[in-house]
Amino acid sequence: MIKVGIVGGTGYTGVELLRLLAVHPNVELTAITSRKEDGLPVADMFPSLRGRVNIKFSSPENADLSKCDVVFFATPHGVAMAQAPELLKAGVKVIDLAADFRIKDKAVFEKWYKIEHTCPDLLEQAAYGLAELNREEIQKANLVANPGCYPTTMQLGYYPLLKAGVIDAAGLIADCKSGVSGAGRKAEIATLFSESSDNFKAYGVAGHRHTPETKAQLQKFTSDQVNLIFTPHLVPMIRGMHSTLYARLTKDISNEELQKLFEEQYKDSAFVDVMPFGSHPETRSTRGSNMLRLALHRPDNGDTVILLVVQDNLVKGASGQAVQCMNLMFGLEETTGLTQIALLP
Amino acid sequence: MIKVGIVGGTGYTGVELLRLLAVHPNVELTAITSRKEDGLPVADMFPSLRGRVNIKFSSPENADLSKCDVVFFATPHGVAMAQAPELLKAGVKVIDLAADFRIKDKAVFEKWYKIEHTCPDLLEQAAYGLAELNREEIQKANLVANPGCYPTTMQLGYYPLLKAGVIDAAGLIADCKSGVSGAGRKAEIATLFSESSDNFKAYGVAGHRHTPETKAQLQKFTSDQVNLIFTPHLVPMIRGMHSTLYARLTKDISNEELQKLFEEQYKDSAFVDVMPFGSHPETRSTRGSNMLRLALHRPDNGDTVILLVVQDNLVKGASGQAVQCMNLMFGLEETTGLTQIALLP
Amino acid sequence: MIKVGIVGGTGYTGVELLRLLAVHPNVELTAITSRKEDGLPVADMFPSLRGRVNIKFSSPENADLSKCDVVFFATPHGVAMAQAPELLKAGVKVIDLAADFRIKDKAVFEKWYKIEHTCPDLLEQAAYGLAELNREEIQKANLVANPGCYPTTMQLGYYPLLKAGVIDAAGLIADCKSGVSGAGRKAEIATLFSESSDNFKAYGVAGHRHTPETKAQLQKFTSDQVNLIFTPHLVPMIRGMHSTLYARLTKDISNEELQKLFEEQYKDSAFVDVMPFGSHPETRSTRGSNMLRLALHRPDNGDTVILLVVQDNLVKGASGQAVQCMNLMFGLEETTGLTQIALLP
Amino acid sequence: MIKVGIVGGTGYTGVELLRLLAVHPNVELTAITSRKEDGLPVADMFPSLRGRVNIKFSSPENADLSKCDVVFFATPHGVAMAQAPELLKAGVKVIDLAADFRIKDKAVFEKWYKIEHTCPDLLEQAAYGLAELNREEIQKANLVANPGCYPTTMQLGYYPLLKAGVIDAAGLIADCKSGVSGAGRKAEIATLFSESSDNFKAYGVAGHRHTPETKAQLQKFTSDQVNLIFTPHLVPMIRGMHSTLYARLTKDISNEELQKLFEEQYKDSAFVDVMPFGSHPETRSTRGSNMLRLALHRPDNGDTVILLVVQDNLVKGASGQAVQCMNLMFGLEETTGLTQIALLP
Repeated sequence: MIKVGIVGGTGYTGVELLRLLAVHPNVELTAITSRKEDGLPVADMFPSLRGRVNIKFSSPENADLSKCDVVFFATPHGVAMAQAPELLKAGVKVIDLAADFRIKDKAVFEKWYKIEHTCPDLLEQAAYGLAELNREEIQKANLVANPGCYPTTMQLGYYPLLKAGVIDAAGLIADCKSGVSGAGRKAEIATLFSESSDNFKAYGVAGHRHTPETKAQLQKFTSDQVNLIFTPHLVPMIRGMHSTLYARLTKDISNEELQKLFEEQYKDSAFVDVMPFGSHPETRSTRGSNMLRLALHRPDNGDTVILLVVQDNLVKGASGQAVQCMNLMFGLEETTGLTQIALLP
Repeated sequence: MIKVGIVGGTGYTGVELLRLLAVHPNVELTAITSRKEDGLPVADMFPSLRGRVNIKFSSPENADLSKCDVVFFATPHGVAMAQAPELLKAGVKVIDLAADFRIKDKAVFEKWYKIEHTCPDLLEQAAYGLAELNREEIQKANLVANPGCYPTTMQLGYYPLLKAGVIDAAGLIADCKSGVSGAGRKAEIATLFSESSDNFKAYGVAGHRHTPETKAQLQKFTSDQVNLIFTPHLVPMIRGMHSTLYARLTKDISNEELQKLFEEQYKDSAFVDVMPFGSHPETRSTRGSNMLRLALHRPDNGDTVILLVVQDNLVKGASGQAVQCMNLMFGLEETTGLTQIALLP
Repeated sequence: MIKVGIVGGTGYTGVELLRLLAVHPNVELTAITSRKEDGLPVADMFPSLRGRVNIKFSSPENADLSKCDVVFFATPHGVAMAQAPELLKAGVKVIDLAADFRIKDKAVFEKWYKIEHTCPDLLEQAAYGLAELNREEIQKANLVANPGCYPTTMQLGYYPLLKAGVIDAAGLIADCKSGVSGAGRKAEIATLFSESSDNFKAYGVAGHRHTPETKAQLQKFTSDQVNLIFTPHLVPMIRGMHSTLYARLTKDISNEELQKLFEEQYKDSAFVDVMPFGSHPETRSTRGSNMLRLALHRPDNGDTVILLVVQDNLVKGASGQAVQCMNLMFGLEETTGLTQIALLP
Repeated sequence: MIKVGIVGGTGYTGVELLRLLAVHPNVELTAITSRKEDGLPVADMFPSLRGRVNIKFSSPENADLSKCDVVFFATPHGVAMAQAPELLKAGVKVIDLAADFRIKDKAVFEKWYKIEHTCPDLLEQAAYGLAELNREEIQKANLVANPGCYPTTMQLGYYPLLKAGVIDAAGLIADCKSGVSGAGRKAEIATLFSESSDNFKAYGVAGHRHTPETKAQLQKFTSDQVNLIFTPHLVPMIRGMHSTLYARLTKDISNEELQKLFEEQYKDSAFVDVMPFGSHPETRSTRGSNMLRLALHRPDNGDTVILLVVQDNLVKGASGQAVQCMNLMFGLEETTGLTQIALLP
């Protein structure tokens, strides 16, 4: 059994990790930390876990995370970089669900996240945890940077097109929509029910932290200069993410060939479902599951290709993807413990 | 024109007052206070008011409320009692949307609200602002305690039955459901979209502050001992309140006579709609309007009578009712500025 | 492996059976019928099942259900009674999620469901599928009538009190609230998003079909005359049911003793969670899981006891409960395939 | 008083017309037709109108629409073209909320709407009812084609840029999101609460009927060839529309100049609110009002300009806009009866 620790278990990615790990056949939940909730049974905070998760929160001081085989950081940015070096030294693997190790360029990280990076030497050795494009690196890694939710959809969407060199890399437009749980479990007026329900808006159009992460990754797929317009929006639903990705075709290519690019690319990826050309994937078809579904469109058979990509932002976009990485890091079947079927309706 | 001031305009009852007063033909919005938002144009916080409300928030120190004809308190409990005495002395009428003057018994107030009442002498002169049952007192009042949202539905529902003496006053059960805006515009985890949406729960079953208010009022309608079980629930909708009121009939009375009790009682009340016997009123039929709708049921013609009562908790349950009181206090037609039709769908 | 057939797989209880059975370790999905969708892959209608359920709908004529070990009827009322006799004769076990075999009294059934009962002889042999109260009978049954969603909450709530004889059986009031999926997957205006969202209402107050079912079952628990007022309401959420059950205590009993009645009764029931006295269970704590959670309240330590009961109406209230029965009928562990943890948030 | 008739009053645009016209100071509601609901009081179907709208539905045969001064068609496509010729001959003005007269080119209309146009001669004389861009023509018109909801946002958004010749007209991308009420009040599975809630999807990406309407109108604003990619999405909210409009700048222009293009264009348009550069308008800021709000963005000061445009799809996107046209046609102030402030929260 893999001994698992979780740092920061009171947020949405934390409780989602608990939901997934509690039924994972190879995992033993060993420790979960929260300074504020020290001593509180986890199931008292999240009654959905009553009878299923019996451990208590402990303050970071009391939790001996060094006894764990792997520690997940479901924390705000900055926490993992403070604790990861010591854990790694103790032989504990680390998976960070925040952004601390996502961006290789220290200066870029510091510009966007407004904090100093305190262990830049680890940036190089951190594997980027997008298994579908980076499986081998993850398998060998001791430190994994779990991708952002939006970047997951943009990368898995644009990758086959950039790799094949059939689109204008400098003219990418990603119009993305996220459920409210993406904003986290924080006491804030803007995400109150009475503010977010029956409402729709864009946010962060001037610049969102997922832009530099995505651009850097996309740039790895092509020698052309990548330019990306990324517009996030807030949807009045709890879970779910829908990215509408636009690109301009620069090569003469048929719809069948386009479709084939994706089917070939993802034929061995259990969590990527390439739907028939012209489908309209719904976010709910992934609710609670680790699946990402996508479909291609090409209006009037013109030179614009549209990709519709959906996932559950808390699963494939966060905690499920992190467990997927853990499976790879420990030599397990990639899908272990991740076979939940989406809740529909 | 009536010069109107609002203390505490950044909450939901505050912005609802603004929506209503901005189109009221006899009102001039004169001042609105917020310590935190001093100098901010109101429409910057609430873009729905752009082009319609042009005043700015001012700190309490800068706002000369004594120039107003009437001041509304859309504040947490305790604020009105601190400022009302001075305003009243200056000849300014006061309408408190909080609980400071709702409960005549100082000890009961202090037990439930955990603060000392600092102007108990005003308790007696405060009129209880339920116009349908207390019109004349309000007309003459300088200080009005606007009723709580739940109490409004319970009183207007039970009144005709208690007055007619046809039910067991000691066995009242009120199963009530409120939209989330009733919890106010406060940064709290419990009312986040991701916590409240797609979810339903009871709360405060052990004791809710609206219980003593309601019991004291209901007791005024009958010489029998009133006993009330009140169970509030939270509904995943922004606005709306639905009270399901149970009572046991103690007199031989026909359904037609029951229905007539209500129709007679409210025939001159523009904001109470007695629907046909056996109707199922929907909360949305009152969304954004000052209407309260109710309907009677009597399962199997037995001795239990059920009242279904709906209103918009922010309008008839709060700000609309307060404007209704203002109209009476200034000798205006009771419905002035309150003729909005509910938004459906 | 148990060969399973489903009649009527295009509704919400049908797709929920598929979600549960597709991951059940002892089940082989063998046939699923739909006259209208003959030949359509199930996953084309429900993309959440893509890659997980590979069978197609077949018309009743083409589906050889007699090869199955058990057949679930996820159909409107009247279908199971037409097909069950032949299947039972062929040695196939039958579980009906509709009402055909829930009410033992043919006349009562026909009065409420407005159809003739065509196999009244089967009424006696049908086991009522509420495992927590009827486990042994279900284990031996070939035909199971799966309980209605509301009746499940009312029975599991009132049972310990009626059995202990501590409440007035003639004065039960059940104020119940259901998510919209309870209305089924039917093209109807009343359950459109734009009609049901941001809205709350009671319905069927004059008489709901779950009343006679519940009363007949409750009457089995006590020799006192049972009388029940049952008021269903519609909540703007997809899944979830919350029953607020009122009863009047007739015996001198402490809160600890009350609590103990429930804890003792359900200590071996994996799917009933008796929460601490005074808790407020949330429907979302059961979303997607087969758990029913309940908590006791007693306002002012008076003679009214309130039970708050929550479940997912599609799981414990329908398809999960049906699988629970199947497990018992085939000698499996009762919880097999039903260990999903609720999706929160 | 203007005598108003409504054909097809049982849909969402119909009941919204009723909500607006019932408080319009110059209107007398004279007739409302529905074949199916002949004789039913309108308020029985829509309880929100109880006490405010007292007329009954009448079948088309019984309603003498020729006595009206103006008739609104809130009907499916094809109805207005059948009845408009006779009404116009009788001197009755006609406003069609459907598409019958929106597209001047008969062949294009017939290709997209799959019905023959039976009065093509009227196509020329029909004014396109977008008051902000077409005020004078509407003032003189007897027949008005009320614009589609999506086209309203796209035209008011792109117009100042196309007119100024600062963008590439051939590279427009409109990523649009609509509340569910846009799908109408029809019994359909796809728009059930349990299908649409907590879900997000694109639809009609291969071709939506609003594309040809919008392209034809946009083409009138520029001599360059217009090309438009239009991707509609469904948002789990009742009302509201958010269009995210992308365009590539082809001229050297500052952000201040861009902003000024819009402020100048709409300075006399009471229903268009140009928000400060970089704002994020929310749909709820227009809920129930006739306002359209928009804001400009320019990521990284690059050559892509983004317009965020919001409106209530049932008001400025349909019934409110129709009343706005009526006001112009009858020489009234354009804002008469349309001064409702948005319902927030």
